[in-house]
Amino acid sequence: MEGKKIIINDVTLRDGMHAMSHQYEIEDMVEIAKALDEAGVDIIEVSHGDGLAGNAINYGFSKYPETEYISAVAGVLKNAKLDVLLLPGIGTIEDLEVVIDLGVKVVRIATHCTEADIAIQHIEYSKGKGLDVVGFLMMAHMISPDELVKQAKIMESAGADCVYVVDSAGAMLPQDVADRIKAFKDNLNCQVGFHAHNNLSLGVANSLAAVQSGADRIDASLCGLGAGAGNAPLEVLIAVFNKAGIKTSCDLYKLMDAAEDIVRPMMKRKGVEVVIDRDSLSLGYAGVYSSFLLHAKRASQRFGVDTRDILFELGRRRMVGGQEDMIIDVAVELANGLKNELEVK
Amino acid sequence: MEGKKIIINDVTLRDGMHAMSHQYEIEDMVEIAKALDEAGVDIIEVSHGDGLAGNAINYGFSKYPETEYISAVAGVLKNAKLDVLLLPGIGTIEDLEVVIDLGVKVVRIATHCTEADIAIQHIEYSKGKGLDVVGFLMMAHMISPDELVKQAKIMESAGADCVYVVDSAGAMLPQDVADRIKAFKDNLNCQVGFHAHNNLSLGVANSLAAVQSGADRIDASLCGLGAGAGNAPLEVLIAVFNKAGIKTSCDLYKLMDAAEDIVRPMMKRKGVEVVIDRDSLSLGYAGVYSSFLLHAKRASQRFGVDTRDILFELGRRRMVGGQEDMIIDVAVELANGLKNELEVK
Repeated sequence: MEGKKIIINDVTLRDGMHAMSHQYEIEDMVEIAKALDEAGVDIIEVSHGDGLAGNAINYGFSKYPETEYISAVAGVLKNAKLDVLLLPGIGTIEDLEVVIDLGVKVVRIATHCTEADIAIQHIEYSKGKGLDVVGFLMMAHMISPDELVKQAKIMESAGADCVYVVDSAGAMLPQDVADRIKAFKDNLNCQVGFHAHNNLSLGVANSLAAVQSGADRIDASLCGLGAGAGNAPLEVLIAVFNKAGIKTSCDLYKLMDAAEDIVRPMMKRKGVEVVIDRDSLSLGYAGVYSSFLLHAKRASQRFGVDTRDILFELGRRRMVGGQEDMIIDVAVELANGLKNELEVK
Repeated sequence: MEGKKIIINDVTLRDGMHAMSHQYEIEDMVEIAKALDEAGVDIIEVSHGDGLAGNAINYGFSKYPETEYISAVAGVLKNAKLDVLLLPGIGTIEDLEVVIDLGVKVVRIATHCTEADIAIQHIEYSKGKGLDVVGFLMMAHMISPDELVKQAKIMESAGADCVYVVDSAGAMLPQDVADRIKAFKDNLNCQVGFHAHNNLSLGVANSLAAVQSGADRIDASLCGLGAGAGNAPLEVLIAVFNKAGIKTSCDLYKLMDAAEDIVRPMMKRKGVEVVIDRDSLSLGYAGVYSSFLLHAKRASQRFGVDTRDILFELGRRRMVGGQEDMIIDVAVELANGLKNELEVK
């Protein structure tokens, strides 16, 4: 707090890509980017939902190549910095090279919260290019604040200017956020950021808790447009920050207008809804990857166990991406447990 | 906390009446009430959005008379207690008499936060009938915790079993809620409740803050169905309470199913949306009555001042219902201020 200005990093054009099934029109993206820029947003992220090079069969083809989206937005920004997200394993340093030439000024390298080391080379490369570099620790609810600090230190040592606590599953309560942000502030010298999801309807409250615990950067998107239940809605977040006396460079009315006059009509036109429904709430409650959902639903049908019980058990066991085969095991165990319970009765 | 069970008071069938423009079908209401009852909800409120006898031209005619709705729901509840809301001035003691005979067990008497005294006779009457009686202090963000305590004491002295902090405009931050609930717990012997609105996307977070500050009862509605931006969504609230170790009698999965399989399809069928749009966000930001909105929009057009500036100034001056004529004065003052500013430039 202490009068410092919080840096707002918009993700309407990246996390929002998920909600749009990666089918943004170029002109819609440009209109939104212009409005965000004019409203004083500091950093605007443009990438496939799964980051650079996500435009592929396993992550969903986007309507246009990422270079077209990025070039179009780069051409209209007057004050905001353009940023891209990269997940090592999906995108490569070569992909970074291409987009840096297009005008990207901030690079965010995202890894699972226990795998910061795979971001080292990308962070070092981007720092070498003189960019503002951010480490992005996803599913950060899955490990303790102390363990998370160790991972953040790897990113800071590699040169990150900021490390984010990312609540990918929207599974954190305000206290969970506060604990992690405070641990970062106590142990890191770089800036600290927070990225919310709204699965438990806590996106704005968690972002507020993050700032009150010392966070320097906050992610948000117009109308909350983002994967699943969406992100913290930017126009609401700034209203709350204004009321709480938290300073940003954002113009509240301009953001409200951009949400109401540009993004919501576009969502209606495209048939896109961002709601906390049974699926997104179940994922937030269980604290698991959204990629588990379809597998859990299939296993539910096959073994007669509630999808939510499967997801919750996967969350309890802290299963990570790549362990999808465990979903069947869990469903079988739960089905057997259910059988035993019925027999005992 | 300390292991006590929080009492959940559902308002899907009362505050939700606003969202439904008071056009609930009897069978929809019965289906929702049954699902809430089976999910373990403690108290279920059925009334016109503006309370008993709200079925009139100035508050909006409902599709069926209130006695039909109340009788229908009373006939299906197995465990939950049925409650009604009454605003003195709209409803009368005679209205209470009628519905108590229909099976109502809890009565909630709602007044503006500075007018608790007009609830005394209704509270005394209901206590005399042996009911569970609740005082409901609306727009509670408008006065300080100390002033609010004084009003709550009037209701407690009249016999209220519980007094609510009601965030009618959805204008409170978590700290505002905590301050008021703590002040109540420190100064009252009766139970304390909290009723949220979601205009700032803080409905769930504020309810969590209320419980963590000692609240005994919490209001919520399925899918957040309620006036403006809606209430705290019940199914999400219980997920958060479960995660936070807060006990209730509610079954999370049954509430998730009721929201997803009954209420959301009904909303789609009826074309009802509950969103934080520019209007509801403006009201929450300004902290004013929703009835000011239309007047402020008209004044905005007439005097060329932003609706939001008018609302915000009305909030700053703590205007209350009945002072709608002040809206023109404020708009004129703002327009003149704007004119002066332009002349100076």
